[in-house]
Amino acid sequence: MVRTAHAELVTTPIQAGLNRAERGTIEIDARYREGLDGLEGFGYAWLLTWLHRPDRPGDPPLRQVPFLLRSQRRQVGMFAARGPWRINPVGLSLIQILDVTGPAIRFAGVDLLDGTPVIDVKPYVTRFDRPRGDPRCGWYDHAPISDGITPAQLTPPRPPG
Amino acid sequence: MVRTAHAELVTTPIQAGLNRAERGTIEIDARYREGLDGLEGFGYAWLLTWLHRPDRPGDPPLRQVPFLLRSQRRQVGMFAARGPWRINPVGLSLIQILDVTGPAIRFAGVDLLDGTPVIDVKPYVTRFDRPRGDPRCGWYDHAPISDGITPAQLTPPRPPG
Repeated sequence: MVRTAHAELVTTPIQAGLNRAERGTIEIDARYREGLDGLEGFGYAWLLTWLHRPDRPGDPPLRQVPFLLRSQRRQVGMFAARGPWRINPVGLSLIQILDVTGPAIRFAGVDLLDGTPVIDVKPYVTRFDRPRGDPRCGWYDHAPISDGITPAQLTPPRPPG
Repeated sequence: MVRTAHAELVTTPIQAGLNRAERGTIEIDARYREGLDGLEGFGYAWLLTWLHRPDRPGDPPLRQVPFLLRSQRRQVGMFAARGPWRINPVGLSLIQILDVTGPAIRFAGVDLLDGTPVIDVKPYVTRFDRPRGDPRCGWYDHAPISDGITPAQLTPPRPPG
């Protein structure tokens, strides 16, 4: 389970990569701790999490307005965005590993609610995970992206009246 | 579902990043195609897959000898390696997007068996997915890694006698 300081989605930073200073902890069940052997040698890891939203039952819409495009009210396909409301709500967060003790991984880079269930931890391997050059990143190349940004800061102003 | 030329795990390259030239296809069910809108603007994507192995029932060992360390017969923790036999067998492959048509995504970078189920597709966003600098990559920094390598090529020679 991931322990963070965030209890509300609207005030949780939208991406770990945009909130690299904040720290969190992954609690590891005693029966899985042996599986962490060697992880302390890595600078970064992928944290796969389950982003189930019991408050949003049913299938999410296939076209959505991402948080970062709220001011433009522009829709894009679910598979062309990194939003949390997905057919299979698996979150992918790049975390910086601070230390690995028996019961926990301390990390920097927080974009998760407190209590989020962990599916997997995989080490970041540059040879596998870094594309060559500077790839095109679709609509993200033109979206305004600030560090630490949260959905609350991206909500469009209410229409007058 | 992912369509590739590989029917056997032992002859399938172990990482998409080590087999960037080979091509595969992701077939998209008609009801989800709308979700691809905008994906063609991205150079790369993360392909999350289900690596269930019906031939290997039960929980995998928490310490395993990765394919790349077979010649050294060295074990590392499951969460410090990228192997496919995991508590939650979710695969993470970095694929290069070639084109996105209605029914399919054609991609380069193959490390999957033909018929592997797809859990999710997420666009690669450099700002989210690239660590600063050149991070430590644990035992991978010292392992011999060749492009296109397969488990069959990494099997240790049988002991004499």
